[in-house]
Amino acid sequence: MKKINVGILIFNEVEVLDFAGPYEVFSRVRTNKGAESRRSNDSAPFNTFTVSLDDNHIKATGGLKIISDYNFVNCPDIDILVIPGGYGTRSLLNNEELLTWIKNISETAKITSSVCTGALLLAKSGLLEEKRATTHWGAIEALKSISKKINVIPNRRIIDDEVITSAGVSSGIDMAFLIVEKLFGEEIASDTAKYIEFHRSKATV
Amino acid sequence: MKKINVGILIFNEVEVLDFAGPYEVFSRVRTNKGAESRRSNDSAPFNTFTVSLDDNHIKATGGLKIISDYNFVNCPDIDILVIPGGYGTRSLLNNEELLTWIKNISETAKITSSVCTGALLLAKSGLLEEKRATTHWGAIEALKSISKKINVIPNRRIIDDEVITSAGVSSGIDMAFLIVEKLFGEEIASDTAKYIEFHRSKATV
Repeated sequence: MKKINVGILIFNEVEVLDFAGPYEVFSRVRTNKGAESRRSNDSAPFNTFTVSLDDNHIKATGGLKIISDYNFVNCPDIDILVIPGGYGTRSLLNNEELLTWIKNISETAKITSSVCTGALLLAKSGLLEEKRATTHWGAIEALKSISKKINVIPNRRIIDDEVITSAGVSSGIDMAFLIVEKLFGEEIASDTAKYIEFHRSKATV
Repeated sequence: MKKINVGILIFNEVEVLDFAGPYEVFSRVRTNKGAESRRSNDSAPFNTFTVSLDDNHIKATGGLKIISDYNFVNCPDIDILVIPGGYGTRSLLNNEELLTWIKNISETAKITSSVCTGALLLAKSGLLEEKRATTHWGAIEALKSISKKINVIPNRRIIDDEVITSAGVSSGIDMAFLIVEKLFGEEIASDTAKYIEFHRSKATV
């Protein structure tokens, strides 16, 4: 089985749980259920990795130091693109190299998604035009200000309108589970949620 | 205000959300509520860092690459010790240097805690004798097998019996919030939960 490549963007001042939540979910999914199957990658449908613009050494919010697996030059094809948020997004809103990369990757990716203020980067890349989208509650006005053509929806945990956007920080975990469910069904998603003992917030999807 | 040092142990094959969940919570608490206060560390009561045994380059479960802030030699005093889990715990169960370090740190730390199979390391350090404790549902028998003197409690999200242990993976987020609540009250804990849009599982505490 060819694995599905999940590329998670990281950058300085990325919010830790924004990227670590989806990373945990995608990297721990197994199509063979239970705890034992997690000891190997045999039934792992996803190949999950981190990508950064150029420098591989990233300092997340709070100071957590991460080394990205790839940069924009050597990154493998991405099937599922995850753009997390954090204060680091603000200084990237005018980074044409990054915005162009997001736009280009999304053209070939099966799924483009964001967590929290990652939606601001999708918006600046032009990917949310004429779409419903959400973001962290503290960034709703910031998202609206990027384009009047985005139908910004507050108070929803996940919005799935071709591009999938989620609300703040931990919403990214629920978003990752939604994507798992779309691709592999509820049973596999629930088995992974049971493995990481996460109580999904499905009612607000 | 002197900050409270939160030391989170990391090691090869540590489960990502086991350490990243508590890291997110502790590093984003602010005693001044709202979103703006998160732009600086001014009202951050915790100083959150990662610690590893010797090599600072750690590969977590799924392959995530992290660089720890400190090792056992240069680590500052720890007020709150967090021991995460993951398959990497198994090869550490007979690592005397690590077990002695955990025991020594816990003697001066205000709070000693574990997430998931981190409880196995606390048990091997002798810290759970005569105490109620929990772990990941898949490791309940493994925890019992370490000592008959541990009162192992399944199906509970957090057990607070001097040492604080939590169930699998995402339970560590709820455990971190419990510690925040114990130290700073429910209002500050709830404000942080609102900031990271996390729905706490309090009923099972």
